[in-house]
Amino acid sequence: MSIGIFDSGIGGLTVFKEIAKAFPKADIYYLGDTARVPYGNKSKETIIRYSIECADFLVKNFDVDILVVACNTASSHALDILKKYLQIPVIGVVIPGAEMAVKTTKNKKVGVIGTIATIRSNAYKEAIERLDKDIELYQKACPLFVPLVEEGMIDNQIAKLVIKEYLQEIIDKGIDTLILGCTHYPLLKDTIKNIYPDISIVDSSQNIVSHIKNLKINTEENSIKHIYITDESPAFEKLKNLLVPEGKTEKIELSQICNL
Amino acid sequence: MSIGIFDSGIGGLTVFKEIAKAFPKADIYYLGDTARVPYGNKSKETIIRYSIECADFLVKNFDVDILVVACNTASSHALDILKKYLQIPVIGVVIPGAEMAVKTTKNKKVGVIGTIATIRSNAYKEAIERLDKDIELYQKACPLFVPLVEEGMIDNQIAKLVIKEYLQEIIDKGIDTLILGCTHYPLLKDTIKNIYPDISIVDSSQNIVSHIKNLKINTEENSIKHIYITDESPAFEKLKNLLVPEGKTEKIELSQICNL
Repeated sequence: MSIGIFDSGIGGLTVFKEIAKAFPKADIYYLGDTARVPYGNKSKETIIRYSIECADFLVKNFDVDILVVACNTASSHALDILKKYLQIPVIGVVIPGAEMAVKTTKNKKVGVIGTIATIRSNAYKEAIERLDKDIELYQKACPLFVPLVEEGMIDNQIAKLVIKEYLQEIIDKGIDTLILGCTHYPLLKDTIKNIYPDISIVDSSQNIVSHIKNLKINTEENSIKHIYITDESPAFEKLKNLLVPEGKTEKIELSQICNL
Repeated sequence: MSIGIFDSGIGGLTVFKEIAKAFPKADIYYLGDTARVPYGNKSKETIIRYSIECADFLVKNFDVDILVVACNTASSHALDILKKYLQIPVIGVVIPGAEMAVKTTKNKKVGVIGTIATIRSNAYKEAIERLDKDIELYQKACPLFVPLVEEGMIDNQIAKLVIKEYLQEIIDKGIDTLILGCTHYPLLKDTIKNIYPDISIVDSSQNIVSHIKNLKINTEENSIKHIYITDESPAFEKLKNLLVPEGKTEKIELSQICNL
């Protein structure tokens, strides 16, 4: 089996890491559209066009059997269209995260954190309401988390202060479960866990792995792990070596994926 | 006199503020290309195209007498072309900042801080070398400063820790002068000054005002202060109210400035 993963940038490498751990012999191809990151401030039409271009690159070049959309913005805006457009299973990050939170919470009070765009989209709110109307959801945008992670500040004093600054407010609402609604955030998971040990932290990747397992496709291939990026990104090497050191990286031109 | 100012985003409002303070009766028109921010990760060709589009919007709609490029990336890559393309004086942020640092430093050790793109471009390094070859320049990219400012965290404990994390290294080199090489950074100026009271801080805006004064154009007009943005930006309102509360804001469509 080969698995295609795309993200607007490099945060999706946290998803790559979990999938590679679960399916070590699978071929995994990752596309990070670093030239056009972030998608969060683009219009819905543009996000859909970019997402189709990313999907096309992975399907046409590597004939992937499954597509994972490891980007909250693309998952929120383009997933349904990608599912109709492609002949293969397409898995986003929002529904697996929402499902897992609903299963995990005991007091039905859940928090979700993400970028401003993700929180404004209400994607998690709608997904959770569809699963369980009784859950109280508290949302909080954490715009400093992505630059912190990209700076490698994941457990220093600054990271701890920023985490408390953003999270205390929703912790005080009594949540017992927190969804990491951005693929960069799993890198802050241990530090969040240390500060708030009683909170269950939901990282969509784990449930994405279950979704892939449920497809019951033979995952043994040639163990290829390839990463494509559309532009050099200052933070890329650092994150890549931390998360997917075994991956082979190649920079491609935007014109290789862009139809315009 | 009417003055046009453009920036890739909202940081240039710090420049707007200083110009409006110096020329309260001038008409000032600001364009923040918030739909396409940041320019720093785009190719040189794209930055030039965007800059020409921004300049055209201001010149064609408001017949501005002077254009201020309040964006370090556009100043580094597109200033010479804009000067040739337009019939009016064009002032960037890099040269005024470099000039002022050269005048300010006593020990000829200068620091410059900016985004990763600005520091990588070496624009300040080249400008300072042209002015004084004996100056030792220490550069440091501070990627967390823009999100901090956009979050309004300009003087809390997090801001102070991040400032020390980034600046201590170049302070230890013995610099006596520090150039704020990003238009967001003047909002951190007081906090930097409190932590490092002996360092002279250079904010290009002040020297931009001198450049405009040198042009000796009559600045008295109708005191119009208009701000145009190409997309809603979560941080815009906050910064706008802090810096240019008197400005009237209008969102325009990207298609109104984009030629493609």
